[in-house]
Amino acid sequence: MVLGYSLHPMSIFTADEIAYLKSQPLGRLATVGPDGQPHVMPVGFRFNAEEDSIDIGGRAGFAKRKKFRDVLHNPQVAFVVDDVPSVNPWTVRGIEIRGRAEVLETGGSILGPGFDPEMFRIKARRIVTWGLDGKPYQQHARSVP
Amino acid sequence: MVLGYSLHPMSIFTADEIAYLKSQPLGRLATVGPDGQPHVMPVGFRFNAEEDSIDIGGRAGFAKRKKFRDVLHNPQVAFVVDDVPSVNPWTVRGIEIRGRAEVLETGGSILGPGFDPEMFRIKARRIVTWGLDGKPYQQHARSVP
Repeated sequence: MVLGYSLHPMSIFTADEIAYLKSQPLGRLATVGPDGQPHVMPVGFRFNAEEDSIDIGGRAGFAKRKKFRDVLHNPQVAFVVDDVPSVNPWTVRGIEIRGRAEVLETGGSILGPGFDPEMFRIKARRIVTWGLDGKPYQQHARSVP
Repeated sequence: MVLGYSLHPMSIFTADEIAYLKSQPLGRLATVGPDGQPHVMPVGFRFNAEEDSIDIGGRAGFAKRKKFRDVLHNPQVAFVVDDVPSVNPWTVRGIEIRGRAEVLETGGSILGPGFDPEMFRIKARRIVTWGLDGKPYQQHARSVP
């Protein structure tokens, strides 16, 4: 007898959430500047199954970007992946991940050719989803223990 | 002789930026909670030519949403509209608007049928664009006087 079995027994994400994260090319990452002013930009990302994290890096000067400087000052970030699978009827789905970004000085090359060594590794503390279960206007929110 | 003529002489946005904002159905709005934790969600929006603002509201309880509570505490927001006009070759474009959201207690009905009275009116203080001029990897940033 197997209790609590799932396809991703070690993940804080559900199998549906992981499949959705793997299906989307871009998300939008929000960081906060020292003056409390948020900043938000589209970014590529990778769901890292080993670390159960969202890994984000960049090319050609990632460590010089505003988001990198923001995170050095305040590691709290929010990351949203969403899309509109149908325009008629209007149907939306997505996942927001709030948490903390760890700044790694090396390792960015796992994200692909040409990536800078620096990268973010985001660990979720709160997860909000909508539409992943086919009910687009119903949000599900949970904190990560 | 007309100096400084443009199609939108009273706007802080260029004609290209306004056309782009009008062409896109969704943006992503970042707010910041009292603890410095950002929050980001997809939202519909309207470019308001009269106010030179980005107007954002919602249905069925906008004033109860986290973003609304966040803005009451910290009016600083960031809003990004972006898309991928071509996957091959990979081509991106977009605009990020950082600024302050004014909370209006009434007026949301201008956004469409069924919208709650409460709404945000975002005035830009900093504008970053990429790809709107066909050069996707070149960012242009400016502060609004």
